[in-house]
Amino acid sequence: MNQDYITPNPWSIIEDGFEVDRVQSSESLFSIGNGSMGQRANFEETYTGPSFQGSYIGGVYYPDKTRVGWWKNGYPEYFAKVLNAPNWIGINVIINDEILDLFSCKKVENFRRELNMKEGWLGRSFEATLQNDITIKVDIKRFLSLDQEELGVIDYHITPLNSEAKITFIPYLDSGITNQDTNWEDQFWKTTNKEVSDKQGFIESHTLKTFYHVCTFMESHLFLNGNKSETKGKPLQKEIEVSISFEEQVAQGNTLSLQKYAGYTTSLNHDKSELISAATSVLEKATSEGFEGLLNTQKQAWSEIWKMSDISIDGDVKAQQGIRFNIFQLNQTYTGTDHRLNIGPKGFTGEKYGGSTYWDTEAYCIPFYMATKDQQVARNLLKYRYNHLEKAIENAEKLGFTNGAALYPMVTMNGEESHNEWEITFEEIHRNGAIAYAIFNYHRYTGDYSYIPEMGLEVLIAIARFWEQRATFSTQKNKYVILGVTGPNEYENNVNNNFYTNYIAKWCIDYAVENLRKVEIEYATDYERILQKTKLTTTEIESMLEVADNMYFPYSEEHGVYLQQDGFLDKEMVKVDDLDQDMRPINQHWSWDRILRSPYIKQADTLQGFYFFEHHFKKEEIEKHFDFYEPFTVHESSLSPCVHSIQAALLDRMEQAYAFYLRTSRLDLDDYNKEVKEGCHITSMAGTWMSIVEGFGGMRVKNDQLHFAPKIPKEWTSYSFKVNFRDRILKVEIGHDNTNFTLEKGNQLQIVVNGATVEVK
Amino acid sequence: MNQDYITPNPWSIIEDGFEVDRVQSSESLFSIGNGSMGQRANFEETYTGPSFQGSYIGGVYYPDKTRVGWWKNGYPEYFAKVLNAPNWIGINVIINDEILDLFSCKKVENFRRELNMKEGWLGRSFEATLQNDITIKVDIKRFLSLDQEELGVIDYHITPLNSEAKITFIPYLDSGITNQDTNWEDQFWKTTNKEVSDKQGFIESHTLKTFYHVCTFMESHLFLNGNKSETKGKPLQKEIEVSISFEEQVAQGNTLSLQKYAGYTTSLNHDKSELISAATSVLEKATSEGFEGLLNTQKQAWSEIWKMSDISIDGDVKAQQGIRFNIFQLNQTYTGTDHRLNIGPKGFTGEKYGGSTYWDTEAYCIPFYMATKDQQVARNLLKYRYNHLEKAIENAEKLGFTNGAALYPMVTMNGEESHNEWEITFEEIHRNGAIAYAIFNYHRYTGDYSYIPEMGLEVLIAIARFWEQRATFSTQKNKYVILGVTGPNEYENNVNNNFYTNYIAKWCIDYAVENLRKVEIEYATDYERILQKTKLTTTEIESMLEVADNMYFPYSEEHGVYLQQDGFLDKEMVKVDDLDQDMRPINQHWSWDRILRSPYIKQADTLQGFYFFEHHFKKEEIEKHFDFYEPFTVHESSLSPCVHSIQAALLDRMEQAYAFYLRTSRLDLDDYNKEVKEGCHITSMAGTWMSIVEGFGGMRVKNDQLHFAPKIPKEWTSYSFKVNFRDRILKVEIGHDNTNFTLEKGNQLQIVVNGATVEVK
Repeated sequence: MNQDYITPNPWSIIEDGFEVDRVQSSESLFSIGNGSMGQRANFEETYTGPSFQGSYIGGVYYPDKTRVGWWKNGYPEYFAKVLNAPNWIGINVIINDEILDLFSCKKVENFRRELNMKEGWLGRSFEATLQNDITIKVDIKRFLSLDQEELGVIDYHITPLNSEAKITFIPYLDSGITNQDTNWEDQFWKTTNKEVSDKQGFIESHTLKTFYHVCTFMESHLFLNGNKSETKGKPLQKEIEVSISFEEQVAQGNTLSLQKYAGYTTSLNHDKSELISAATSVLEKATSEGFEGLLNTQKQAWSEIWKMSDISIDGDVKAQQGIRFNIFQLNQTYTGTDHRLNIGPKGFTGEKYGGSTYWDTEAYCIPFYMATKDQQVARNLLKYRYNHLEKAIENAEKLGFTNGAALYPMVTMNGEESHNEWEITFEEIHRNGAIAYAIFNYHRYTGDYSYIPEMGLEVLIAIARFWEQRATFSTQKNKYVILGVTGPNEYENNVNNNFYTNYIAKWCIDYAVENLRKVEIEYATDYERILQKTKLTTTEIESMLEVADNMYFPYSEEHGVYLQQDGFLDKEMVKVDDLDQDMRPINQHWSWDRILRSPYIKQADTLQGFYFFEHHFKKEEIEKHFDFYEPFTVHESSLSPCVHSIQAALLDRMEQAYAFYLRTSRLDLDDYNKEVKEGCHITSMAGTWMSIVEGFGGMRVKNDQLHFAPKIPKEWTSYSFKVNFRDRILKVEIGHDNTNFTLEKGNQLQIVVNGATVEVK
Repeated sequence: MNQDYITPNPWSIIEDGFEVDRVQSSESLFSIGNGSMGQRANFEETYTGPSFQGSYIGGVYYPDKTRVGWWKNGYPEYFAKVLNAPNWIGINVIINDEILDLFSCKKVENFRRELNMKEGWLGRSFEATLQNDITIKVDIKRFLSLDQEELGVIDYHITPLNSEAKITFIPYLDSGITNQDTNWEDQFWKTTNKEVSDKQGFIESHTLKTFYHVCTFMESHLFLNGNKSETKGKPLQKEIEVSISFEEQVAQGNTLSLQKYAGYTTSLNHDKSELISAATSVLEKATSEGFEGLLNTQKQAWSEIWKMSDISIDGDVKAQQGIRFNIFQLNQTYTGTDHRLNIGPKGFTGEKYGGSTYWDTEAYCIPFYMATKDQQVARNLLKYRYNHLEKAIENAEKLGFTNGAALYPMVTMNGEESHNEWEITFEEIHRNGAIAYAIFNYHRYTGDYSYIPEMGLEVLIAIARFWEQRATFSTQKNKYVILGVTGPNEYENNVNNNFYTNYIAKWCIDYAVENLRKVEIEYATDYERILQKTKLTTTEIESMLEVADNMYFPYSEEHGVYLQQDGFLDKEMVKVDDLDQDMRPINQHWSWDRILRSPYIKQADTLQGFYFFEHHFKKEEIEKHFDFYEPFTVHESSLSPCVHSIQAALLDRMEQAYAFYLRTSRLDLDDYNKEVKEGCHITSMAGTWMSIVEGFGGMRVKNDQLHFAPKIPKEWTSYSFKVNFRDRILKVEIGHDNTNFTLEKGNQLQIVVNGATVEVK
């Protein structure tokens, strides 16, 4: 654990005390979002210390020019940059002509932040003594409305404590933002219109190239001791900023407060000529409800979310705080209502990694959304990939594949590849497998087969075609090999016969052909349509099966395990525990070549295969592979500990499982990888959920039935979660001596607990 | 062959006719240089068509910030960019108020360029009809003085053919240059001073960051029909430009000409406060000698160079032109007089590839310079690396090596690594071997052992240490393996046990230890000094030998050949001849992953090992490996065909050897790789020299004796070359029926011809 300044609390993330060095980490941890937009927890008022400003609108991106040292054929010319959007949270505060700036105050006391996850708001309070010796008490609450996704609200209170003071609030909108990750002075936004009155302000701007039109808007109301003030605001305009100044003399002990209603209307949801009128409607509705009214609606909306997705843990407040933080962030990032959006690896908490969609969605996020939301949400995620199929085929064509073979991009925003590192972009092709696996997993869990004849089978055929073409027949081995790949473990590049990749490739072909046959028999019309569209021939199917049936898997007779890739055992096999601990994390201490020739595994790779295909292997095999690979795994990817936690639990190694659980659930809160200031690891948070439900709870779906093998870490008294399974809501409560299953929706459900069939009512 | 517009001629490169599409290629091919500075063959007058402006000063570079998509630990923060220097060739020409611009003329006729290699000058002549219907005849000659390395001269003649005309010459200096390879608006130069009179102009500027101070200077003289004109120039200054305008009314048929003396004085050779006075001295000397005087000196200097380094070929003018072009460019690039300089891969003909020094110098260039120059020149090249030893040790430390192990940079200007592509920078480590090999080669050829105890042994120890640390003991193989490398064939990345790398690694250790023992016995004082400095212990030596003695080499029993790397035979082994020819060059048609998993070899790799260590193998072994690897080699590196040519000649495959010879010698003239507009391939030109001397001539040094096995392509009548061997100059003339060896310097020499000892007098 690398930091521990977050106060343990079951429902809130709390920081006590102001430290300049923690500001950027806290900006990440206290981020808020409502699925449609989100923002880092930047201060509203001026702050001149180190800060990472971030405000993001879902689906709004910029195709930035790829710049690499050495160009390789096949690189995309552009990558989808997650754009920092115009800032609407800003409120400059002036106390007797001195700007409030926590970085330059004489004293800051009783500083406290709270991210109240139960109710969905961010609070901040402090007492500051300025250089002019005036001490003020400040109390701020802010949230992004779940109910009105274009709206955010701020309530900003100031009380002068040791004298009267002239207090000036200057709420503003600033369109002059830039990205932190830009090395050059590019502009991404063009401002086209500004309007400002004594109460409201609007800035219209659009992104360059992609022409997303956005109206950033605000309206502010002033209150003295809770009573609406009659003081008029003074409107001001700068080149790319509008602001309104409210000034009032405030007696010692009195409280002046500003309520700011603000947000974005965008051309994603409105005609671009109607953005201001749409914004005006939002403001009208919002101000008529008022801050307290909106806050109540917000609490209500979060209460609905928690009702289904909460996991409660008794007896271990840090574990409790961790899982809720993960669930909260997932719900802030993606609500499932907009099929154009996806789950970005940093959500709305940072801008690292361009694009929004990685294989993380299929491999890690789908189980969470399947079990805690309506099944339409998971189906939307699958549909997202179906909508991108044509672009995935074009992408494969760029790399020399033909005849409708698809390679889904490593990173994407609109279906086009957005990544530019050959060993990943061109070689981390196992991602194709996860997309097929998600189809299998969706059907297994929801029982909804309709997606496959309607859309999924086309995806499966295109992926199977890819693998058929990508495999090479080795006359040496008399088998099909897959050369030059990067597996999930990105600490190996351009290796041959990565077990995980070969295994999922074979599976993809088998699964595609299996479904082809099923659709042929059961959905004849769809079958005809698909055959006509894909021009799939019997010869091609035979050729695919020839590859699948003769796939090579590297295996060590000596160790009785499949090898991560050819030549793995030539490495210097020093276990992680025997490594100089000063060298860790190795990605911050070793040059890339040293990492590559070491045996260290960044994230579950062979074990990811055993996780996905657990049902293909005996427990002894899983154990043998776990014992072989775990000691070499450094977990320097956020996606790693959850898989190990699930497997450790399966193998009854509860201490290890618990350690991995803490690591995955508190990865950001405790900043294990020393990088939380860049943003949180959103997608792996779904892995945390899995490590409880699938790990400790042992939940699996087999033959249309939910199975459980409940376990509990010794540190916990009990824990409980709910899953939505085929229109029933099942509550699972697990203690040390008892397990309760209750149906909260639906009449009855047959489940299997530790091998025994149980009827739940 | 992709273009053939260059007119065959034994001593000149000639282009007849003006074509806009050829301008950039010709700018490369007609480049001139004098070892100290050089320039692309840009036009003196305005040209608004597509052009690639380039003027370069040896040793002047800029440390540009590395920009990569994804940073890897160990990347250098900066890379040495070859800088485009201020332009001094510019002469704007105005005919009756219309600017002469070949891109916008009504008509251009009788356009001709000539690069006269025998005499060392560039000529250009044409007749142009302007939009104002005036037709002028233009004749220009330009050269960079070998005798005065800071000086260049231009003689520019204009004759109005169809009417009288007002002719204005505006010679200028322009400091506002930028690099073509910059994607951003960086400035590399800062102008600090300008001076201009009616005759002379000076601009002082310095590079940013590196602070190389340069005075760019000029003086111009006007002549009418060969008689000095009394017309005064009008000085002009712009922000970063000085110019002088000369205007004269010229009768039809009369000739106005301008002689421009210009060049650079730099802080590399002068105190920065004395650059203008140094420039004035250069101008004084130059103008007193006059254009014709300087041209005579130039012819004389080139005649001296050709006397030693020429290779004449009878009966095959294209072959003749090719080899002379190669020898000419090598001599333009590096004269061996300045030990701070080296042989950049593009010389002074382009800016691609930052830095000046690659392993090309040791692997390809040293034999040429050893045999055609004083042996001090080759020794300077070795000393260059000795001077960089400390930085090579630091470079290795950055990558985790310890205890004085050295890794020489892949690309360098000042000893620091300048490359930023992990698979090359960190993994193409065989370059270390070439640096040791050059020491061996130098001693073998010159017989001068003194470099080893004085400097070379320290280099050898540091390199041996690197290999000892870089190898890994594989318990699987019970051998030392070298994992994660890129061999000379850069179409394979991050492979294990590249034969060439493993072989040269073992050899480096053996050779270091062998010399350690020799120095211990024969140079005891040096030995003490070196041992004290390097702190080399007996244990460390034993550990090195343990690695060398147990090195693993991948071998195929089936084919009876060493394998390029582990797993090579798993590839789809389709020979180059059976490949769809539309796919070639594959680096312009295939994505990188497809190239990597193909068996195609960019440049000699295993065969490079058999070339270097020919004396370790039987002819049958060389033949077997040649037969195995040649069919997979695509020669998409300029460094490839020469090695194959030499080996084909050794194996008596003269047709193949001749084809490879043509390809290497006319690579740029015929633009095989469709990229000559970026600049010429300078370092591989030394390989062309080797393909005649070592290939057809069969020259080798064994046991302090020159051996020859003379052969001649059937296309040639005869050919001859000279080599400087241990202070004797031997002329070799080879025909179909007779071979003559003549000593041009020295009293007598015992050589071995086809196995028989011959005394040459």
